[in-house]
Amino acid sequence: MNLNVALAMPVHTARAVFPPRSLDPLEPSVNLLGRAPIQDFHSPAGRCLLADADVLITGWGCPLIDETVLDAAPRLRYVLHAAGSVKHHVGEACWERGIQVSSAADANAIPVAEYTVAMIILANKRVLQIARALHSTRTGVLPEQLFPDMGNYRKRVGIIGASKIGRHVIRLLAPYDLEVVVSDPYLDDAAAAALGVVSVSLDELVATSDVVSLHAPSLPSTRNLMDAAMVQRLRPGATFINTSRGELVDQDALLARVQQGDLYAILDVTTPWVLPSDSPFYTHPNVLLTPHVAGSLGSELERMAASAVDEALRLARGEPLRFRVRREDLAFMA
Amino acid sequence: MNLNVALAMPVHTARAVFPPRSLDPLEPSVNLLGRAPIQDFHSPAGRCLLADADVLITGWGCPLIDETVLDAAPRLRYVLHAAGSVKHHVGEACWERGIQVSSAADANAIPVAEYTVAMIILANKRVLQIARALHSTRTGVLPEQLFPDMGNYRKRVGIIGASKIGRHVIRLLAPYDLEVVVSDPYLDDAAAAALGVVSVSLDELVATSDVVSLHAPSLPSTRNLMDAAMVQRLRPGATFINTSRGELVDQDALLARVQQGDLYAILDVTTPWVLPSDSPFYTHPNVLLTPHVAGSLGSELERMAASAVDEALRLARGEPLRFRVRREDLAFMA
Repeated sequence: MNLNVALAMPVHTARAVFPPRSLDPLEPSVNLLGRAPIQDFHSPAGRCLLADADVLITGWGCPLIDETVLDAAPRLRYVLHAAGSVKHHVGEACWERGIQVSSAADANAIPVAEYTVAMIILANKRVLQIARALHSTRTGVLPEQLFPDMGNYRKRVGIIGASKIGRHVIRLLAPYDLEVVVSDPYLDDAAAAALGVVSVSLDELVATSDVVSLHAPSLPSTRNLMDAAMVQRLRPGATFINTSRGELVDQDALLARVQQGDLYAILDVTTPWVLPSDSPFYTHPNVLLTPHVAGSLGSELERMAASAVDEALRLARGEPLRFRVRREDLAFMA
Repeated sequence: MNLNVALAMPVHTARAVFPPRSLDPLEPSVNLLGRAPIQDFHSPAGRCLLADADVLITGWGCPLIDETVLDAAPRLRYVLHAAGSVKHHVGEACWERGIQVSSAADANAIPVAEYTVAMIILANKRVLQIARALHSTRTGVLPEQLFPDMGNYRKRVGIIGASKIGRHVIRLLAPYDLEVVVSDPYLDDAAAAALGVVSVSLDELVATSDVVSLHAPSLPSTRNLMDAAMVQRLRPGATFINTSRGELVDQDALLARVQQGDLYAILDVTTPWVLPSDSPFYTHPNVLLTPHVAGSLGSELERMAASAVDEALRLARGEPLRFRVRREDLAFMA
């Protein structure tokens, strides 16, 4: 059976995420309904492609797939999203009609985990602090006199949230001589053991880890998860990494602790998204601030295209989706 | 057979490298001749311990083990060094008497590889450049507008030298979606394939890699390996990482290329070791300069103690040394 596959996303998304080579693997196995994406489901071209499509490969900015769209798409059974969250374009009607949905959230988690692991290694070694000292003194610097506790051997790394990103961090840290502990209310001891880590309470994790990295989803229940008391609990000399969302952290408490001088912070996200220009987070020497770069950017967008293309090829071979999203998962997802 | 094991190194080395817990694993299996190290082989205490020792565990600053020392050590058969190079303390007489020598060079290679991998990931993503832009503009920064080619997907990483460090870098990079190529005159295609990488010429590696990392040993034959022509060959936008030795690189050519604006450099070593305070390497925005921090420091010293202790335990079990150094290896070692 030859699946009819159409793309649905703005042209600028297609240009960024789907370079021509990314679609080549599809051609022997499915019937690709053109390489130009549907931009508007209600345009004549959109309706024409919808009428034939078994599968939609969607991307950032794909318009909502609601009941009227589905009415024009009698064959549609699969929506394969080449990005993380499906909440914006997969309407209620999709779930009700039993459309199977897949997302590239796992592929999108990889660069965040890679950024995090690089930062953990540099944090335990105090590399960026030492580089900063060298930059300003312009003379010999003796690292161990500045930071006698430096080094990536038998340090404890605390991962808050065994999310997709948290799990990739754990996987990438496996070859290092670091003790990884995880706190996640949905992770039992057996599941932690299967990941090769130890499950601990959030209190214990925060109080005992040399590096604490936040990978919980942004949900009403995780808002202010790192509240003022929890920020105070971070051990002296610890590094706190946030690549999740600013809303999960009491940012004033974090700043106060950083300014106290015994905490380091690596922040890829803040509240608000762009800080006011007088925020001390921009300039405090214990802070590395980056503008939401940990997620998929540049060449990494193509990994999400490859993930969606792989899903389509699985369907063409009669295999189940690998990264299926179910309606009931949405409450725990970004 | 119960092996007699003595330590030989300055007290400050023992304090830094051998915390008390590091020797605990020895006690059930060998006869540890005290926890205080021999500091002078010719002192009464030194001669007394030497007379009984089958094994010496040595550390940085261990005095030379020459013929007179060996004459006082009739049982000595093994020198297990808890650091990298054995050239300073293992005298000719040791090789002539067939003393077996082991080093912790492999353990010492690990933190260098860890530093390198963290820097490769940040370099492909342009993270530190973007952080610097954010630090100075203090407003919204659009990473992909600054660096459209950013990202850690299907980039090429070139490793110069399949040394211990080079091999650990290759191992740690295995889970990443990066193409790793290696140039090493002693690595044939089969050995490269066994490492999971492709062997290419130095010219090709330098001309085609997004990140080039230098892991060749410092030898007369590698002096100026990255000469001016080779530095020119680095592709525009490439990052050059040096954790090896400054002498391997034409530093003036490197600076000129950095100042031209289309090359990034991450330098943990320079010539001279401490640069004059007016060196532009301290301040150029395309350079991250660190003061020789990639190697074992702080807690990482204990990994070398653990390596030497493991070797002694292998001997106690009647197994061969894992990291034996042979006289003929010295020509290729740091």
